Amino acid sequence: MHSVSELSKLYNDKFDTDNFYSGKMNLYVPVKHIMQIPGKRIRPMLLLLSCDAFGGDVQSALSPAYAMEIFHNFSLVHDDIMDQSEIRRGMPTVHKLFGINAGILAGDVMLAYAYKYLTDVSAEYLPPVLQLFNRTSIEIFEGQQMDVDFETRNDVSLDEYLKMVEYKTSVLLACSLQTGAILAKASPTDQQLIYDFGIQLGLSFQITDDLLDAFGDGTKAGKKTGGDILMNKKTYLNLSTQKNCNAEQTAQLQSLTHDPDENRKITLTKEIMKASGGYDITLNKAQELYSRALQSLEKISLPESRKAELYKMAELINKRDY
Amino acid sequence: MHSVSELSKLYNDKFDTDNFYSGKMNLYVPVKHIMQIPGKRIRPMLLLLSCDAFGGDVQSALSPAYAMEIFHNFSLVHDDIMDQSEIRRGMPTVHKLFGINAGILAGDVMLAYAYKYLTDVSAEYLPPVLQLFNRTSIEIFEGQQMDVDFETRNDVSLDEYLKMVEYKTSVLLACSLQTGAILAKASPTDQQLIYDFGIQLGLSFQITDDLLDAFGDGTKAGKKTGGDILMNKKTYLNLSTQKNCNAEQTAQLQSLTHDPDENRKITLTKEIMKASGGYDITLNKAQELYSRALQSLEKISLPESRKAELYKMAELINKRDY
Repeated sequence: MHSVSELSKLYNDKFDTDNFYSGKMNLYVPVKHIMQIPGKRIRPMLLLLSCDAFGGDVQSALSPAYAMEIFHNFSLVHDDIMDQSEIRRGMPTVHKLFGINAGILAGDVMLAYAYKYLTDVSAEYLPPVLQLFNRTSIEIFEGQQMDVDFETRNDVSLDEYLKMVEYKTSVLLACSLQTGAILAKASPTDQQLIYDFGIQLGLSFQITDDLLDAFGDGTKAGKKTGGDILMNKKTYLNLSTQKNCNAEQTAQLQSLTHDPDENRKITLTKEIMKASGGYDITLNKAQELYSRALQSLEKISLPESRKAELYKMAELINKRDY
Repeated sequence: MHSVSELSKLYNDKFDTDNFYSGKMNLYVPVKHIMQIPGKRIRPMLLLLSCDAFGGDVQSALSPAYAMEIFHNFSLVHDDIMDQSEIRRGMPTVHKLFGINAGILAGDVMLAYAYKYLTDVSAEYLPPVLQLFNRTSIEIFEGQQMDVDFETRNDVSLDEYLKMVEYKTSVLLACSLQTGAILAKASPTDQQLIYDFGIQLGLSFQITDDLLDAFGDGTKAGKKTGGDILMNKKTYLNLSTQKNCNAEQTAQLQSLTHDPDENRKITLTKEIMKASGGYDITLNKAQELYSRALQSLEKISLPESRKAELYKMAELINKRDY
């Protein structure tokens, strides 16, 4: 068994040198930019932890772990173009620095390299690993499309929102975890349980994120509190508030949508989120999803000691202090 | 053995109904647009012909053949964004109709589906098929980057141009052919020969295309003759002309670069292409590459009768009458 920091060292030692973007070709300059911004590398760590927990060989899981990180970064590059985002992890986004064309092409080649590293798994695991990854990547694109569609819709339900988050965020966590389990020959039941763990964990993460965006201490996250409110963004918090407002609150919320006074808009919207019950519903939902994630983890047929690092990782992902 | 039209029928019968873009989701509307424009489907036909020639089961090769067509269409969608092209096969391009974001996302999901259909091959062939496809897709992105880089360079050599065409155009033809051969358990030598056949065929196709753009009968191709000349595009014809000009011709060519009179620019540039020898060099090169393609095909250890359809296809691809 390895700790997260041991796995992290194995991973970094290998891919700080053995990567695909060191060549001089212009194509790889933007790739290097995004890949070298320090990040938490959550997906590769989940893959390695899962493989390790089920008694698999973590060395042989390094390439697919890297594939998950490459895919994640590819999706950030293309999403940032679509969302016209200018900052990512405190740095200028790829298309902001290098242009949209370079961003498109850098993303494309990263997706190809994700598949290349994934193909490094030994032949016996290739069919299930690829089938899972193909399905996951398609779901992620479908999730991105839902997110785009939601922007111009006024009738998004909470279930639709959760489905979008599941596709856009959760499935890659779940895929990483299940891939590790496949490589360790875990049983189909355990594979499904660790996949479900990833799904619930991703959902609770995102809903907690929605809450923190409005009610967190923005200084710790390095971003302004209330950003989602200012952009009238559809989040679980926003949708559950809308659903639970009385007539007066609905009218008030409506008029705040176009309020030019940013502080007033944030303060009053937050008051309605609390008063309507939207805040409590969202908090309860996040806690319920986190509990369900842990329940899936509990049911896996491994001694608790082998799951200790996964519990820690879940806590790390979910219990942010900002 | 099957004829091209028989294989084409098998392919169309399957994928006119069994495709991935029929769903109602907005994501698939642009995908359907590009996939349904009638095209020659050269890549899937090459894959099926190769598989058939080596005695493989063409039914089991249909999904990977479809994967090649999906990949090709994906690359058109993203390339058209980068090149700001508005027309493709006589129809508006995806991003022109649906916007750049829809074009990026539609392309991404097509790439994922290409891998999904490729993964349908039986497990024993999966590692070599994927390794070849991964390498090919990476080369295609590198080729696109070279093409972008060439626009702002004045020192592009003929060899560099050929390398760019090899990556951007030839390798997917070659990959399609070799994939068919892999699925039919062809020997490594024959796999290499049919791959080389695809490389040379793609190069001769592109160089012939360069020639026809300037000297062909544009009415048959449905496009204006001299388009490359007007855009000062670097082609084999353009580069070999530059290389063979005397001082006077070089100066004349230089001044024509910015000539606002389109007809004069085209007519005089073509005269220099002929007078300098650039035209003859290009024509010879195209013929040489086509001969080499046929030589590779000849060397394959199959009776000539089994290669008859591949010869026909080569002729069809290369000997266009416009």
